[in-house]
Order: sequence, then C-alpha cells, then structure tokens
Amino acid sequence: MSKPYTRLDKNDVAVLLVDHQAGLLSLVRDIDPDKFKNNVLALADLASYFKLPTILTTSFEDGPNGPLVPELKAQFPDAPYIARPGQINAWDNEDFVKAIKATGKKQLLIAGVVTEVCVAFPALSALAEGYEVFVVTDASGTFNEITRDAAWDRMSQAGAQLMSWFGVACELHRDWRNDIEGLGTLFSNHIPDYRNLITSYNTLTKAK
Amino acid sequence: MSKPYTRLDKNDVAVLLVDHQAGLLSLVRDIDPDKFKNNVLALADLASYFKLPTILTTSFEDGPNGPLVPELKAQFPDAPYIARPGQINAWDNEDFVKAIKATGKKQLLIAGVVTEVCVAFPALSALAEGYEVFVVTDASGTFNEITRDAAWDRMSQAGAQLMSWFGVACELHRDWRNDIEGLGTLFSNHIPDYRNLITSYNTLTKAK
Amino acid sequence: MSKPYTRLDKNDVAVLLVDHQAGLLSLVRDIDPDKFKNNVLALADLASYFKLPTILTTSFEDGPNGPLVPELKAQFPDAPYIARPGQINAWDNEDFVKAIKATGKKQLLIAGVVTEVCVAFPALSALAEGYEVFVVTDASGTFNEITRDAAWDRMSQAGAQLMSWFGVACELHRDWRNDIEGLGTLFSNHIPDYRNLITSYNTLTKAK
Amino acid sequence: MSKPYTRLDKNDVAVLLVDHQAGLLSLVRDIDPDKFKNNVLALADLASYFKLPTILTTSFEDGPNGPLVPELKAQFPDAPYIARPGQINAWDNEDFVKAIKATGKKQLLIAGVVTEVCVAFPALSALAEGYEVFVVTDASGTFNEITRDAAWDRMSQAGAQLMSWFGVACELHRDWRNDIEGLGTLFSNHIPDYRNLITSYNTLTKAK
Amino acid sequence: MSKPYTRLDKNDVAVLLVDHQAGLLSLVRDIDPDKFKNNVLALADLASYFKLPTILTTSFEDGPNGPLVPELKAQFPDAPYIARPGQINAWDNEDFVKAIKATGKKQLLIAGVVTEVCVAFPALSALAEGYEVFVVTDASGTFNEITRDAAWDRMSQAGAQLMSWFGVACELHRDWRNDIEGLGTLFSNHIPDYRNLITSYNTLTKAK
Amino acid sequence: MSKPYTRLDKNDVAVLLVDHQAGLLSLVRDIDPDKFKNNVLALADLASYFKLPTILTTSFEDGPNGPLVPELKAQFPDAPYIARPGQINAWDNEDFVKAIKATGKKQLLIAGVVTEVCVAFPALSALAEGYEVFVVTDASGTFNEITRDAAWDRMSQAGAQLMSWFGVACELHRDWRNDIEGLGTLFSNHIPDYRNLITSYNTLTKAK
Amino acid sequence: MSKPYTRLDKNDVAVLLVDHQAGLLSLVRDIDPDKFKNNVLALADLASYFKLPTILTTSFEDGPNGPLVPELKAQFPDAPYIARPGQINAWDNEDFVKAIKATGKKQLLIAGVVTEVCVAFPALSALAEGYEVFVVTDASGTFNEITRDAAWDRMSQAGAQLMSWFGVACELHRDWRNDIEGLGTLFSNHIPDYRNLITSYNTLTKAK
Amino acid sequence: MSKPYTRLDKNDVAVLLVDHQAGLLSLVRDIDPDKFKNNVLALADLASYFKLPTILTTSFEDGPNGPLVPELKAQFPDAPYIARPGQINAWDNEDFVKAIKATGKKQLLIAGVVTEVCVAFPALSALAEGYEVFVVTDASGTFNEITRDAAWDRMSQAGAQLMSWFGVACELHRDWRNDIEGLGTLFSNHIPDYRNLITSYNTLTKAK
Repeated sequence: MSKPYTRLDKNDVAVLLVDHQAGLLSLVRDIDPDKFKNNVLALADLASYFKLPTILTTSFEDGPNGPLVPELKAQFPDAPYIARPGQINAWDNEDFVKAIKATGKKQLLIAGVVTEVCVAFPALSALAEGYEVFVVTDASGTFNEITRDAAWDRMSQAGAQLMSWFGVACELHRDWRNDIEGLGTLFSNHIPDYRNLITSYNTLTKAK
Repeated sequence: MSKPYTRLDKNDVAVLLVDHQAGLLSLVRDIDPDKFKNNVLALADLASYFKLPTILTTSFEDGPNGPLVPELKAQFPDAPYIARPGQINAWDNEDFVKAIKATGKKQLLIAGVVTEVCVAFPALSALAEGYEVFVVTDASGTFNEITRDAAWDRMSQAGAQLMSWFGVACELHRDWRNDIEGLGTLFSNHIPDYRNLITSYNTLTKAK
Repeated sequence: MSKPYTRLDKNDVAVLLVDHQAGLLSLVRDIDPDKFKNNVLALADLASYFKLPTILTTSFEDGPNGPLVPELKAQFPDAPYIARPGQINAWDNEDFVKAIKATGKKQLLIAGVVTEVCVAFPALSALAEGYEVFVVTDASGTFNEITRDAAWDRMSQAGAQLMSWFGVACELHRDWRNDIEGLGTLFSNHIPDYRNLITSYNTLTKAK
Repeated sequence: MSKPYTRLDKNDVAVLLVDHQAGLLSLVRDIDPDKFKNNVLALADLASYFKLPTILTTSFEDGPNGPLVPELKAQFPDAPYIARPGQINAWDNEDFVKAIKATGKKQLLIAGVVTEVCVAFPALSALAEGYEVFVVTDASGTFNEITRDAAWDRMSQAGAQLMSWFGVACELHRDWRNDIEGLGTLFSNHIPDYRNLITSYNTLTKAK
Repeated sequence: MSKPYTRLDKNDVAVLLVDHQAGLLSLVRDIDPDKFKNNVLALADLASYFKLPTILTTSFEDGPNGPLVPELKAQFPDAPYIARPGQINAWDNEDFVKAIKATGKKQLLIAGVVTEVCVAFPALSALAEGYEVFVVTDASGTFNEITRDAAWDRMSQAGAQLMSWFGVACELHRDWRNDIEGLGTLFSNHIPDYRNLITSYNTLTKAK
Repeated sequence: MSKPYTRLDKNDVAVLLVDHQAGLLSLVRDIDPDKFKNNVLALADLASYFKLPTILTTSFEDGPNGPLVPELKAQFPDAPYIARPGQINAWDNEDFVKAIKATGKKQLLIAGVVTEVCVAFPALSALAEGYEVFVVTDASGTFNEITRDAAWDRMSQAGAQLMSWFGVACELHRDWRNDIEGLGTLFSNHIPDYRNLITSYNTLTKAK
Repeated sequence: MSKPYTRLDKNDVAVLLVDHQAGLLSLVRDIDPDKFKNNVLALADLASYFKLPTILTTSFEDGPNGPLVPELKAQFPDAPYIARPGQINAWDNEDFVKAIKATGKKQLLIAGVVTEVCVAFPALSALAEGYEVFVVTDASGTFNEITRDAAWDRMSQAGAQLMSWFGVACELHRDWRNDIEGLGTLFSNHIPDYRNLITSYNTLTKAK
Repeated sequence: MSKPYTRLDKNDVAVLLVDHQAGLLSLVRDIDPDKFKNNVLALADLASYFKLPTILTTSFEDGPNGPLVPELKAQFPDAPYIARPGQINAWDNEDFVKAIKATGKKQLLIAGVVTEVCVAFPALSALAEGYEVFVVTDASGTFNEITRDAAWDRMSQAGAQLMSWFGVACELHRDWRNDIEGLGTLFSNHIPDYRNLITSYNTLTKAK
C-alpha cells in the first residue's frame, strides 16, 4: 500500500548532475545563492568521498546558459561529460543513458537546475525504466516556491524519493566507524554549525 | 504502485483557460499580480507557439466578474469561446466539453481563477472521464496559500500532474534543435533573468 | 490508481462543526483571527443557505475551553448540539454519531479547532466507516503551520478531501442560475474583494 | 485505496527519542529554539504521563555531537539508553531494536534530530518490519524547511503518520474523564495560551 | 532633541478618510483584505463613538476607481463629502481644507488608499501647515511592503506619528470609567480575540 | 545631532511591567507564545537578579482582561502592585507614578501588552517628564507586525531606546567577573542554545 | 525639528538611472524579478511622460556587469549616457555631475542597482551638495532585505526621501485634469490590478 | 538637520571584529548560517585586501562561548587580539581601546555577535567619544529579527551608519581602476551570482 523502504547502497548508486551552468544559476530563486552553492558543492564532495560514479551533463554550454560551474568540472575531470546538443530531457540523449547504464547502478541520485525540468524530466524517465530515483532537493533549484512545490509533487507521486545531501551522505555511510574523520571533514566543510561544534570540541579536548 | 510518467505530447494537448476575468483577478492573492499576469500571458504565448488548440471560457462576463482579460481574447480570436450561462464547473457546460472533444486531444492543460473552483472542478471531471490532466499551477490563482495548498492536494490525489508554464513549454518542445530562436524568444519575453542572459550573451558575441 | 472524483451533492451532505469554542480559539495561530472568524461564519452561512443538516458539538464548555461562539449557537438554534462529557474524538460520542446517522447523509463536511485533533480524529473515524469526508481547511485552525501541515497530510493520506469554504459553496451550488442573488450575497458578505466588485458594478449599472 | 485509520492505543505504544543531543540541537533551524525545546519536553512529559515505554539513544555522545540533553536523561532514569557506537540509523543497532521488541509494542512514536536522518531512517526501517509508525513532527528538527518537507514526504509516502505532540496526547487519552487534572496540567505546562485560559477560569470561578 | 509627546485629545481631533473606494481597494496588497476591511470599519466606528468630526473624500468616483465603500457613506451621512474633481493630494482641494478648518481641530487622524499617495500627501501638507498628524497605519493600504515602508519613513521623518486604530481609540478614551460598555462593544466588534475573552467572561460570570 | 549614549546603570533603573494579564495575552500575535512567555519570565528573572525595583500594574483584572500572570505575581510578592481602576495609560494613575518616584530612579525599563498602548503611552509620558526610557521590545507584544512597527517608530522618534531583555541584562551586568554563575544561570534558563553550550562544555570539562 | 515637506515639482526634477545592467540585475534578490523589471520600466515611462531630463550611467559595460538593459537605452536615445570608466560612486564622475548640473534641476530622482552602492553613494553625495534627493525604492534592488534595510536607513538619516514610482508619478502629476488618459495609460501598463479596473469599467460603460 | 555624508576613507578606517566565537555563533538566528559565515569571511577578506588595521576580541574563550573561529585567527595572525577577562562591552576593556587609538584611525567598522550587545555597546561608546561608526550589519548576527531591528534602531538613532560588507568594500575602493582584478576576486569569492557572471564572461571572451 505504501512505497517500501528503498535504501541507498553506496555500491549501487550513480550521481547525475544536470545543467548546473553559470547562466542558468541566475534563474534559481527558491533558495539563497550562498546556501545553494554550498549544497551543490557538498553533493559533489560526497560523490567524490563515496567514489560514486558521477555523470555531468549540460545544455547549450556555448549559448546564454553558460558553462558548467568550474568547480564541478574540476572535481570530476574523468567523469562522463555529455554536452547535449539540444535535448531538454537529458534522458532523451542516448549518450547520457548509455553512460548511466555503463555504471551498472540501479539507484540514481539526481540534482540540477531547474528542478521542474532538468531534474524532473530525467527523474520521471528513469522511474519509468525501473531505476530507483532519489532527488537531492537542496542541490536543485528553480524559479520560486510554487514551481518547486509543483515539481516535487509530480516526482513524488511518480515514485521518486525526496532527500537532502546530508540525508544522502548519512544513508550511504551507514556507520561512522567506517571513517569518522572523512565524513566529519565533509560535514565540517559544508555545515557551519557543525564546524563550530568541532572547533569547540577540539579546543576543549586539546586543552586537557 | 506510483503514477507512470505521462509525458506531454504537443500533438495530443489542448489548453483550457478558465475564467481569467478582469473582476475575478482581484481575488487572486496567493501570487503577486505582476508575476501572475506574466505567467498567464506566457501560457498563452506557449499555446500559440506550439499551435495547441485552446479553449476559452468565462463565467458571467456581464456581471461583476468582468470580461475576459483582453490580451487573451486578442491572442485567440478564433478559439472556441464559451461564455457559460451559469455552470460553475466548466465541465458541466456541454459546449465546453464538446469543444474539448472536437480537438481530439487526450491531454489537457488547465489554468484558471480561482484554483480550487475554476481549475479543480474541470480538472477532476476530466480525470474522471479518462483524460490526462496537467494543472498549470503558476498560471492559476486563488485567495491565499491555504486554499491553494488544499486545492493542489485534492487535484494531485485524484491523479492530476502539477506543472509550471516553463515546465510545460520544455516538455512540449523536447529538443532545442526543433527551433532555438522561437523558444528562446518565448523565454526572453517572460523571464527577465533569462532575457538578461541573452542580452549579455548577444552583446559579447556581437562584440567579437 | 488515484482517488475518483467524489463530488459534493447538496442532497447528501451534513456539516459537523467541532469545538469552535471561545477559549479554544485563542490557541489558533496558523491563520489570522480576522480571517478565521470570517471563514467560520462563511461556512455557517453556506450551511444555512444550502439547508444542510448541521451538527454542533463542544468539549467541556463549562471549563476553560469556553462556550461555543455565540454566532454559531444563534445561527443553528435547532441543530443537534452535543456537549460531549469528555470524549476528545467526537466520533467516540454515541450521540454525535447517531445525530449524523439520523441525517441519512453520506458526505460529511468537517471543520473545527484544533485541526489535528477535533477535525482529524472524527474525519479519520468517519472515513473508516465509509463516509466521504471533506475537510473545510480554512474554517479549521491550529497552533502553527507545522501542526497544520502534519494534520493535513494524515487526513489526505487516509482519503479525506481538502477544501475551502468557497470551494464547498461552489461545488454545492453547481449553477449560478439556481439562485444568483442568494449566492452573490453570501460571497459579498464574506469576501471583501468580491463585495467591491459588486459595489462598483452596481454603481455603474444603476448609473446607466 | 487509502491508508486505514491506525489509531494510537496507549497500551500498544513505545516512544523512541533519537539523538536529542546538546551539540546536534544547534543544527536545528526549521523551528524556533524556544518552541522546539518546549515540544521535546512536552513529548517527554506525555510519555511519562501515559507510562509509555521509552527508549533513548544517542550518537557519539563523547564527540562534538554532545551529550543527551540532561532533562531527558533525568526524566527517564530507568529507560533503555543506547549510546550507539557508530550506527547512523538507530535501527541498525541491535540493542536498539531489541529494546523495542522487548516492549512488545506495535506502535512507535519517533522524534529526533535531525529529521531526515535520525527520525526518517528508523521510521522507514520500522515500517519495513511492519510496525505502525507515528512521527512526532514538532518534536523533531532539521536544518531548514526544504530538508524538512523532503523528509516528511519520504516518510509519509512510506506509510508513516505525521502528528504533533498535542495530537498524540489527545489520541492516547481519548476521554478527558480518564483524568482531567493530569492532562490539563500537562497542557498547561506546555501551551502558554492554554495556561492563560486556565488562569482566567480559575480566577473567575474561585471568585464566585 | 526628540519629538515631544503630542497626545490625542478627543476635543481636538478630526478624522480624514481618503479614497477608500471600491476599485482602489483591489490595489491594496500589504495587508489581508479581511483584516483591512475590519480595520477601516473599526476606525469609522471609533470616529462615530468619539463623535469626531469626520471628512470623506474620493477621487474620480465615476471612473474605474469606483465609489466610496458604502459602509463609510452610510456611517457618516452628514459628514462633509468632497468628491475631488482631479486633485491627487486632497490638500490641494480647497473644499477639503476648508472642511478641515471648519472643524477647528488641530489634530488630524488620516487613513486612506494608497498609503504613499492618498495618505502621505495630505499628511505632509498638513504637517507643513502646523497640524499634528497621526497616521492610522492599519486602516491604510498600498501595493506591497516596500511601498509601505518607504511611505512610513517619509511621513515619520516629516513629523507624523504612526498609530493603529486600537492605539487611537485607547489614547482618545483615556479612562475606561468614561464608558466601559461603549468601548468594550467597539473592541468586541472588531477584535475576535477580545470578543472571545468577553464571551468566556460573560458565560462564567452569568453562570454564578 | 544624534541621541547621546544613555547607558543603563543598575543603580538607577526601575522596571515597569504593564498589563501582562492572562486574557490580554491572547491578543499578542506578533511573537510566538512560547518565545513570548520565555522573554517575559526572563525579564522578570533579570529584574530579580539585579534587584531592580519593579512595579506591577494591571487594567481591569476582574473583567475579561484577566488576572496578572501568576508567575509575575509570585516573583514580586512585595512589589508595588497597582490595579488601575480605569486609566489606560498607566502614567495617568497617580499611585503608579508615585511608586516610580519612590524608587528614586531615572531610568525606566518598560514592557507590557499591548505594545502601542500599555507600553507606548507610559513610555511617552515618562519621556515627557525627563526619564530615560528603555523599551524591552521582546517582552512586549501586540496584534501584528504593522501595529508593532508603528508603535516602535512612535516611541523611538520620541527618544525611547529599543532593547531586548538580553541586551538589558548585558548592559546592566557590565562585567562577567561581577558574577559568572549567576548571569550564566539566568541565560541558561532562558536561552536553549546557550544552555546547550553549557551542557556540552560541562560534560567535556568534567570528563577531564 | 522634522524634515519640511519638499514636494516634487515636475519643472525641477531630473532622473538618474544608475547601473541597471543585464549582468548586475542577477544580483537583485530583495524583490521579485517580474515586479522589479516592471517597476524599472514604469519609472522610465514616467520620466518620458513628464519629459524629465534623464541621465543614464553604467559601470564597466564591457565586462561581466553587462550592458545597460536595452529597453532603457531605447527609451532615452538622446539622454546623456555616461559609461563610467571606473568610478563606483557615479558622483565621482565629472561628466555625470556636469550632466546633472546642465539640467538646472534641484530635485533628483535616483534608482539603480545595487541599492547600497549605486543608489546610496550618489544620493549621499547629492545631499551633501544641497540637492533634494528622492530615492525610487521599488525601482532599485539589492542582495537581500538586510542590505536593503541598512541602505534605506543610511539614506533616510542623511535626508533623502524614500518613495515608490507610483508615488512619484502622483506627486508630479498633481491633478488628474492635467491629463487623464496619459496618466491612466501609464498606470494601466504597469499595474495589473489597475488595468483590470479599467477593463471592467470600459466594458460596462461601453455597454450602456 | 540630517546627518552629513561621512564617507569611508581607507586611510582612516580600523576594523573591530567582536566575539565571532564558535559557541556564540549557535545563538545567531536572524540570518542563515551559510550566508552569515560567508559575510564574516568576506569582511575579513576586505579588511586584508584594503590593509585595514584590524582588532580581534573575544569574551571568555575558555568557557562555553568557545574560541574565535579559526579562519579569523588565521587571517590576522599579527592583529591585536584582546581576550577580554570579563568586560561585556569591549570598549570597557582598556587594551581594546588602546589598540584602537594606536591605529590613529577615526572611522570604525564594527561587526560581531550578538548585534545588540557585542556590536551595539562598543558602537555606542565609540560614538560617544567622537568616532565615526559604521556597523557592518550583515556580518553581525543575533537571536531573531525583533532583537536585530531594535538594535539597529538604537545604533542608528545614536548616529551610527548601517552598512553591508559589499557597500563597505565599494565605498573604500572608490574606483575600479585602482585594481580591477583584486576587487573582482574578492567579489567572486563571496558572491556566487557575481562569480557566475565572471565565469560566463571569461568563457565567452576566451572563446573569441
């Protein structure tokens, strides 16, 4: 009667970063730019940390949409990079789907700009082909809260699971004992409140 | 277990514009008037651009509800125009349903004022008759966020898909290569941030 | 796959007003008091207008919860009035359920204070017994938006339809030709923007 | 077609308080700290009042996450207390699940910090094992409204019921006649508006 | 160094209601329509209650701005009523200023639509001529919060005092013993929370 | 050209708590009730902590306004307590002013309900008589943000200084070395985030 | 003691449009882009309508700041256009100040992007040289509400008057009889609610 | 009559960073943590960029307030660093004032946590001693918007100028030609929207 618990498994996940381009980012107004930038980079960092196969795609880089943000390009120098010649739904691009299939993964983490198009379209297509789809909501952005809420509803009703980058990292890691320092550093770099906790803690414990 | 991906197909879509009347618009307070006007005209422009059969209907034009906004009347001079003599749910008007059936389309884009009545009632009726219903949320307006959220929930639970005009345009177009300039102009006319991207881009590339 | 369109039928509807008591109203903070009062009275007026059997119930009137707001008591002098001796879920009170069954109606409009208790509990119980349940969201109030959103989700998932008093009035009336003046007066009394439309219209048409 | 009404039964409920730790609380920004503290203590008080078996668990107490807030530790001195050595999803900790099973209860009330991890993960796991899960939304907190809304959607779609501590207390108590003073005191201690009603009432009735 | 305390004196106050017209009210979006209507009528009621000379003025009643709202016309049948032939700043209309001077009052309460024009212009003109000016902020409305905040700043810097209708009533009344029932009725009619207090109080004290 | 720095001096301060009555508190909607209650009690605690002479006053305690909240009555059992027979501006009550003069203090901290009346009126009167007036904004409440902002502007323009209870405590204390534990306890009792810092700190340092 | 009423006089006003450039506009997030674009064009239209001398200036057009928005360039083809070679405060550019002096006007309307720099700096400089400065707040934009509020305070304290484009138009026009149709058209083009009033009015009066 | 334009002069400015400590930062809730961290580091970067003498001070570093955030300590290794033994108002600490006097500067930029104490107290003291005080509002934080607004009003009325870090940087730099790349890098590092402009610009111009 309800969706079963499909749990992220770091051995079965691929990450799709769709159209985080310098021009398109100026359209994002449902989330503060400081926070949005941080969330996108946090998602990139966790993809690297968990060694998740990551696929980059852009739409019309040479036009007003602008280039992929340089940080993402730099972080995934060897990732499949599909500059789509025109397809709006990345899933309509054969190379993109091939790249996904080549990873052999069944679980897809998707984030992008703007949510109701660049995220929702491939998410719906992937669900239709039987993938388990997890939307990283806070690393995705759109024009305003009305368009966001509508997009979330459409994806959720179709079976996508809505998550945050922090939730994703925790569900992938499962147990802190797998690596305390690595995950702690990831959180410290992207959550100021968490960094403050660590700063105070380290100061007090070093002071012993 | 979840709704399958019903994708908009420009050959199978009709647009229903319900009760965007000069008087009724003063009731809309869940969205800013500048933005709402822009969204409605953007939806009209995309209907024209994709040559989607469009049906206009109003409720009591001669009374306080006021006339259809002139821009819509001007944009669709040959569209079926059903001035309903009293039916609140447009679907209860035989001429309206006949006009829809005459299009031969299975997918309906619906927008109107106010959301929980002029949009929700025909949306629910259309779903009951087997149509695929897509609500253009940001070209629909109502009294406040409580009434909007309740209306969205009722329509979504009944199987309607919630979209924005931008998402609709993108899903219909599918591939930029079908016509870059046409869609670009549509976006430039209705998304100030996008127009700015194009202005800067054109200036720099002309400057070469 | 989705909920079918269960349409309000004025011959098959009863109204349940649960715990709109002078003391409890001070707990309501998810909606402005001016607007909330207006919405509750609008719901009462539409119940009278459509001659819907209406059932009043209160919880501990003699204690700090305070008496039913006098306007409701005055408007429905002959309605069943169940001052519950202690049951929190009104549906646990046999007299209340008997009064509902005595109406012979299958569709229930429910509003009350606070939403997650006085509305949600009888709504869920009524659904469990096969009634069609319509929550009048804007005539119901609670502590804050978190508690409201949680309550709405619980009721919607259980099959209740979320509506506003305006949507209810329109769905019951179906066709303005049934009585233009009556419904117009109802709206004019409870929607300032609508009254303004009528004022301007009357002035201009009288001036002819 | 919809979820049936699963009603809280005080004889079949256990309470799980997950990671309300002094450090982690600084991450909570989707709810005001005064209100959040009050809600958590209200949930603790109702657990005590209804004598519900309660299970405490923490994550890395000795590190920057900080100790369990002292009020909870003090209120449940004899409760099972699982300081997890590393598992992020409390359900992955065998002692935690054993403690739950030892209660023999089928209904689980869950609250914690942060919502999308410490609440959602065990909630989803418990649902997968057939438990009836009730999330106490207002005694759970997270980074912001985006992460909260995504977490709620994920849990709701999986079958969890979203509630507030007040709704929980009312659904458990069922009838005020079971104990007026006890429940009244609980509400008076945690709802300032309610306390004011009681203060005014007592003053006036004593004054007779 | 600071403004001295200029206190409202009911023997020295005139009320100016500027352009509360049915059409113009649709422009007001910095305050909810239910609340705004209530505030304007509350101001009218207090003007009547304190027998303050009241002056009505409108701009282009016969055009799209629409007629004065009928409630105000009905409440002040004998008040000077200046339908301005064109002056935007009411103070530029000689009849308006004459009517004010005829009252012989030095303190002016001003409210109107829209704040930055119909209120601010006569307020600034009156200050320039030495009147003590009190703006009834919550009975005045405008397009949005940006225009409101700018208008308030301009008036405050010029020496106007910003008040609410409730503050005005209290400052005029000075002592409840002058008339408890009259002022209590005024408040009860326009403040739902206050009415609830009175309802509960009356019920309990009658019950003695 | 600007106001000089008038600094709070604990030897020259009296505290005026005006009309924090159980009934009137239901009118306060510009601040959350949990937070407001906490702020008022924090102000009371700091008054006790710094041994500031404190004066309590109420308006019509026996009527619907209700009694002074019991916590304040209990905390200042020996404070002058002026139950005003009718004066709305407490400063119009001779006993109240006498009580203030009896303290011999020149600096007045004022808080109350509602801000634009019970706080603003005595604040303006006190300024007119040469007192230095400090409004404790977050221990004062009113109907909404419009009425609050107007009231703040009126008081500020007249020379009052707007503060928070936390700012007041810090300006009075001046140096932590005067009493670390006392002030720390005050803050810990009223600022959950601060209490968490202390909890973590104590845990770590005790652990040494 | 307060600022005197400095009233806009259409014979003594010049308009300064500072840095409304395609790139810089992406920084504006304290106002919705649809509304902001409309406000800027409304200000341009009123400048043309009242034949106010208008001066355009930009900062680094050839770099990332991008070109002046084309609509402004097109609307004022003969206006002085100062592409500043580097000065951030436009007043530091001699040509800009010369152009202002050449108009012979004493009253300056200033709007621009971003408020705290491109508007505030020349506004403060102009005030220092004795000009009367009017900031068109809603045709100016900046990063967020914190930076806006700080900028407004700085300018207001220095003597600038904060206005909206609508207030400016009304204060310049003074009397509708100067030209009803012209001003009506201006408002109709930029205020959707006003256009609706006119549409309804025209329909009804034509129908006579 | 108004404050004259006191313009920041990079040769006459010192920067005071007050109590940006890891523990105290958890109290800041009037601004998002991602944005706040960015603003503080931007202010630090501009202080370094303009080689402004910078003074660091903390309150009780060894206690729960926690250490200065490490980034600030690292950025100003040679700055005067006053760990105050107890004075709440940093100006009460002789070493702090001496350090300021040693700079020989007359203009002070102040930022800190929390605004109404750590910023407002030294700001008011500095004004009293004749310094020109500029508050960097967006690099200062406090409990909520009520406490912030009150603190801003107090400081503004006393003669402080409210600014943002971006406004400060622009007013200090005066002319881009002084160093385009340096300032551009500063902005690019702290304003994501600006960085995107530069990214797009560089891509297009390199592509020539």
